[in-house]
Amino acid sequence: MTALPDIEHFQARINSFLEDKINSLEKNDLKLHEAMHYGLLLGGKRMRPYLVYTTGLALNVELDDLDGIAGALECIHAYSLLHDDLPAMDDDDLRRGQPTCHNAFDEATAILAGDALQTLAFDILANHSFSSQAKAVQVPLIQSLVAASGYQGMCGGQALDLSATNQGISLEELEQLHQLKTGALLKAAVTMPALVASDISKEQRQKLELFANAVGLAYQVQDDIIDITSSQEELGKPAGSDVDANKSTYPALLGLPGAQQKAQDLLQQALQALDALPYNMQNLKAFAQFIVNRTH
Amino acid sequence: MTALPDIEHFQARINSFLEDKINSLEKNDLKLHEAMHYGLLLGGKRMRPYLVYTTGLALNVELDDLDGIAGALECIHAYSLLHDDLPAMDDDDLRRGQPTCHNAFDEATAILAGDALQTLAFDILANHSFSSQAKAVQVPLIQSLVAASGYQGMCGGQALDLSATNQGISLEELEQLHQLKTGALLKAAVTMPALVASDISKEQRQKLELFANAVGLAYQVQDDIIDITSSQEELGKPAGSDVDANKSTYPALLGLPGAQQKAQDLLQQALQALDALPYNMQNLKAFAQFIVNRTH
Repeated sequence: MTALPDIEHFQARINSFLEDKINSLEKNDLKLHEAMHYGLLLGGKRMRPYLVYTTGLALNVELDDLDGIAGALECIHAYSLLHDDLPAMDDDDLRRGQPTCHNAFDEATAILAGDALQTLAFDILANHSFSSQAKAVQVPLIQSLVAASGYQGMCGGQALDLSATNQGISLEELEQLHQLKTGALLKAAVTMPALVASDISKEQRQKLELFANAVGLAYQVQDDIIDITSSQEELGKPAGSDVDANKSTYPALLGLPGAQQKAQDLLQQALQALDALPYNMQNLKAFAQFIVNRTH
Repeated sequence: MTALPDIEHFQARINSFLEDKINSLEKNDLKLHEAMHYGLLLGGKRMRPYLVYTTGLALNVELDDLDGIAGALECIHAYSLLHDDLPAMDDDDLRRGQPTCHNAFDEATAILAGDALQTLAFDILANHSFSSQAKAVQVPLIQSLVAASGYQGMCGGQALDLSATNQGISLEELEQLHQLKTGALLKAAVTMPALVASDISKEQRQKLELFANAVGLAYQVQDDIIDITSSQEELGKPAGSDVDANKSTYPALLGLPGAQQKAQDLLQQALQALDALPYNMQNLKAFAQFIVNRTH
């Protein structure tokens, strides 16, 4: 598998940032605090932070500014996992090889921890010690996070996913679902650093959006492929759980070879979009390759 | 009961603002959209918006700016009700005399609608067409909403409330719980308009905070009193439900006369704080009186 440059470095960096942030909260209910910590810091590949750091550094954005963006996106991602795993939603027992938050604590605490992690995302963007360059776009950054995570983004996508379960949906509908459910946050991980960048043109931003859209979709296609080709040990959750849950997937709609071809096509689109940019995009290219070549 | 000046006018104004906002969302999952609308617009006394409008107008803040603040706070309040009513939390069947959101729709949809309403609160603050005076404090406004609603505010208070159920807690602990659970948002409904006001001193802000703290606590004390003295018809939910749920309440800790005295003491504190301010505070005084004299 293609290696992901500096992944361990950025994972350590974002984990340390999030640990500091959560420990800085004035303590009241300790159980809720523990559940937030559990949901936010017990593992995770940190793909969104990686994308933030890699994009931002290529565009010469300050690393300290990227911490705030990466931290906020990861809080939204973590809250969505806590809520998606709930019995009323996907009813998952394992996440990252560990008991899901509602199993480790209880349902009420998992709901509240998710709620408080969503607020923490906006806390980070509103209170981070941004440079003056990033401060100038602080409200647009918050607008981007809203658009990526609310009804018109991730939340809406999760609702479409629930509505689609046990129903046959078209490839077009599946694509809209994933563009909202996972694509919106991944896209924000590219476009938010670009908001802070000073010398990037409108056309260059659009190329970055094209890249982000293609990678976001490729990520989901590969996730669907992995769900049926990987083992439980590799996944940290039961293999084939999407099929068991009767969810529409790319392999179900296109067949496994068709889905694999789709992932490769999206990879080519992503790489082409980057070729049009006058920055060193090697690490973002490696990311796109990693996404479609990973096996778990 | 003391009348609340202009309450119907402000209720109509905030309902119209929230209706417009929710209808402006680009439609994707219609069921989630309906559940958000149901949770946000099916009744409600609109006490927080009323407090925003009344405080802001006394401090000469523009009415259009107050819409954004009131709308954001009401979205947070509405999301908290959807989640607090869930089977894993308070397990309530009725809210405002109607089926709770998870009964009218389903649990997953009620969770997601709450999540999306929290995002909508930040959406409103980040995207509202504020005047230049309010735009200058847009990030501090978002910081205030974060502080009032997250782990260090409402969410933390709800967790303390769950932890306290079936456990005897002290009056001091009950007070901390309510200062977070309901007090934080009510306080924000006073301090956020004051952030926008141009000519208010630090001492005057502190007096407003004193007022807000006293009214916030009085609100909860009176809620506890009403829970045992009112009928189901008046409440729109079963009377005595706090007692049935074995929750710590002011009447349980102080006796009914003691709780009534506490509410009156808090009212006096609130009124005194307002007397120190060089604005026309008649309507805020009426609000404080209304809070402790209401019977449902």
